[in-house]
Amino acid sequence: MTDQQQSGPAARPSRRLFLGGALGAAGAVAVGVGGFAAGRATADDSADPTASQVPFYGAHQAGISTAAQDRLAFAAFDVTATDRLELMQMLGTWAAAASRMALGEQVGPVETHPQAPPADTGEAMGLHAANLTITVGFGPSLFDDRFGLAKHRPEALEQLPPLPGDLLRRELSFGDIGVQACADDPQVAFHAIRNFARIARGTAVMRWSQLGFGKTASTSTAQATPRNLMGFKDGTRNIKNSDTKDLDEYVWVGDETDQPWMKGGSYLVTRRIRMLIENWDTDYLADQERVFGRIKDSGAPLTGTHEFDTPDFKAVKDGKPVIDTRAHIRLAAHENNDGVRILRRGYSYTDGIDPVTGYLDAGLFFIAYQKNAHDQFVCLQHRLGQHDNLNEYIQHTSSALFACPPGLSGPGDWWGKALFEA
Amino acid sequence: MTDQQQSGPAARPSRRLFLGGALGAAGAVAVGVGGFAAGRATADDSADPTASQVPFYGAHQAGISTAAQDRLAFAAFDVTATDRLELMQMLGTWAAAASRMALGEQVGPVETHPQAPPADTGEAMGLHAANLTITVGFGPSLFDDRFGLAKHRPEALEQLPPLPGDLLRRELSFGDIGVQACADDPQVAFHAIRNFARIARGTAVMRWSQLGFGKTASTSTAQATPRNLMGFKDGTRNIKNSDTKDLDEYVWVGDETDQPWMKGGSYLVTRRIRMLIENWDTDYLADQERVFGRIKDSGAPLTGTHEFDTPDFKAVKDGKPVIDTRAHIRLAAHENNDGVRILRRGYSYTDGIDPVTGYLDAGLFFIAYQKNAHDQFVCLQHRLGQHDNLNEYIQHTSSALFACPPGLSGPGDWWGKALFEA
Repeated sequence: MTDQQQSGPAARPSRRLFLGGALGAAGAVAVGVGGFAAGRATADDSADPTASQVPFYGAHQAGISTAAQDRLAFAAFDVTATDRLELMQMLGTWAAAASRMALGEQVGPVETHPQAPPADTGEAMGLHAANLTITVGFGPSLFDDRFGLAKHRPEALEQLPPLPGDLLRRELSFGDIGVQACADDPQVAFHAIRNFARIARGTAVMRWSQLGFGKTASTSTAQATPRNLMGFKDGTRNIKNSDTKDLDEYVWVGDETDQPWMKGGSYLVTRRIRMLIENWDTDYLADQERVFGRIKDSGAPLTGTHEFDTPDFKAVKDGKPVIDTRAHIRLAAHENNDGVRILRRGYSYTDGIDPVTGYLDAGLFFIAYQKNAHDQFVCLQHRLGQHDNLNEYIQHTSSALFACPPGLSGPGDWWGKALFEA
Repeated sequence: MTDQQQSGPAARPSRRLFLGGALGAAGAVAVGVGGFAAGRATADDSADPTASQVPFYGAHQAGISTAAQDRLAFAAFDVTATDRLELMQMLGTWAAAASRMALGEQVGPVETHPQAPPADTGEAMGLHAANLTITVGFGPSLFDDRFGLAKHRPEALEQLPPLPGDLLRRELSFGDIGVQACADDPQVAFHAIRNFARIARGTAVMRWSQLGFGKTASTSTAQATPRNLMGFKDGTRNIKNSDTKDLDEYVWVGDETDQPWMKGGSYLVTRRIRMLIENWDTDYLADQERVFGRIKDSGAPLTGTHEFDTPDFKAVKDGKPVIDTRAHIRLAAHENNDGVRILRRGYSYTDGIDPVTGYLDAGLFFIAYQKNAHDQFVCLQHRLGQHDNLNEYIQHTSSALFACPPGLSGPGDWWGKALFEA
């Protein structure tokens, strides 16, 4: 039944799509389906393809300063191909596919030739774009001698050092390429990752993946601050997408980079932070608030009354600091870290039940973007991992670092084009 | 830090809440927090608690004929307590908690006494009710001699027999109690399951759990038919909540039951059906359509042009049946199963990557409600499991059966009250 799978006329339409070269999405698909006429329109009548679209092309990749969407699907891939051209083709095909999915369209027609597999897996047909963004980055391991990229590795793309509190599972960490798909509909985000995996077939395999069901940090002043699985508002002091000065200072790679292909890009750190929520849930309120340094209900710092009140780290009551010396917000605050800031856009996750303890395996899939992860995330985590009150309730079980290049300029551009042509 | 966990004044507020007896939700909480005044209002200003609420009380449990919500969190629990009263208390506490969550409220105040854990875990604060429904059922294993329930086990609650194609993982199957939480926001559904697990602490433990990210069957004519992860519309011919005659005939337990406590209830079957989507995605279009018996794009039967056209199982072209003899819709059709129908409300899932194959562990978490699972689901699955073209692409990895009692009549009623009082 699947004897067509290697040789069918459109078994890899999207590969051919890339080989068509610098084509726009519409033109590319005409190439993709070869000589076969599309039999039926693929758009569901109920879909409004212009609703909830985030522009795919631009100076920076979407999905970084974009207002955080509600749901996440993330995957790390390892490249299995040994041929540089194959890898380039995959990245180009991904870009063409992503440009279409960002419009709420399918990767290609579902109804093409009866003797060929559909060009799209189909489960997002009839769904809106749901503000889908797809953000791609390259891990340190891609810059070995397989693809001739070693000399183009940025100094900042050194693997993260061991950090206090690490309990990393290697099979859930690292990876040659990271892909973050965010959308307000989880099926749209999943569809993007799945079709990337399908296009990657024969070139790269998924190393690990992670779903996130609820955003835990707002990146826009128009968004209410969401709560993490500890029930606290998270990301109150996050960089917002209207803070263009902060974005330039802390998030976007600038002229300081040793690798011009990364200018306008950003470094992505992911950490799967399991929360021991059953223990947390038995802790009493005053202690929970001491751990964070915030009031649980309102989200206000313990020295304030409103969520966005600036914490007063010097405030003292009865001879003790009001915000504990090891409170999370004190240790994470830029005031106490030489001004260092990061852009967070993590998601709550749950992956069922820990077979050993019978407890929920749930927590935060932490995502942060920054100009230099070693100067920013690593410094913060060194401090948090050693001293944070939260450490009693969390375990870092996965870690990865990816260099996300700048945005794609338009049809024909693809992730890493400047890198491979450098 | 957690030395209060067993003895804190409100460590188990909701337990006490139940002991208050037949109280309404509001009254119950006043008991729950004991003598401590709530310090702050818990409602977030952005929440409209009257929006998107599904009535919790009624003749039937919500979450069965309710228009299928977008997201699912499901958990099966095993009872560890040996005392019948403890189990009854847990069920009563669940009911009180659920009645509040269905209104978009917390299980209890987050800000109570500083030396007590918050009565709610807090991550749904500020979120709407999101059409949350919580549906509870009892597995066959609950009716052993632990709680004196053996004599009240309905004949229909016999464990499902081995079925063709079963590849069941025991640790993901069965269970004393099943809880289905459906909502349009996955964080709301997760919050419900988590707080049930928390209330259960010391009485029952989670045996397995499952998240579903996209509904795969509509149960209302107002809903568009969703697509499963094979890209096909699923549930086109499902029983809809406006088909009251069909609901009475196929879904709600009636006078035929040997156990009066189940009258108005329904039997729930869950099956975790992994799809081998990487294989499926290489199959060509005509074969995919032959497997289902439907056109992928429109969802129309191969003998029709519109999704809701009735399949013509007798149609022949070039001497062959247009709808294959082993097509899924032919084998599943009530016309070909002595009129047998079930109410489906399954969800797509993904649980990361299969460590053996490197493929996505993804598919359908099948959920069906019916008057008698042995007469309905088992008959259908015997036929499908032996002959369905789909079998090449699916594996049933989990199975469970639960007897869901009728709806709760009002505050003071709880799941199983009639059973325990029988």
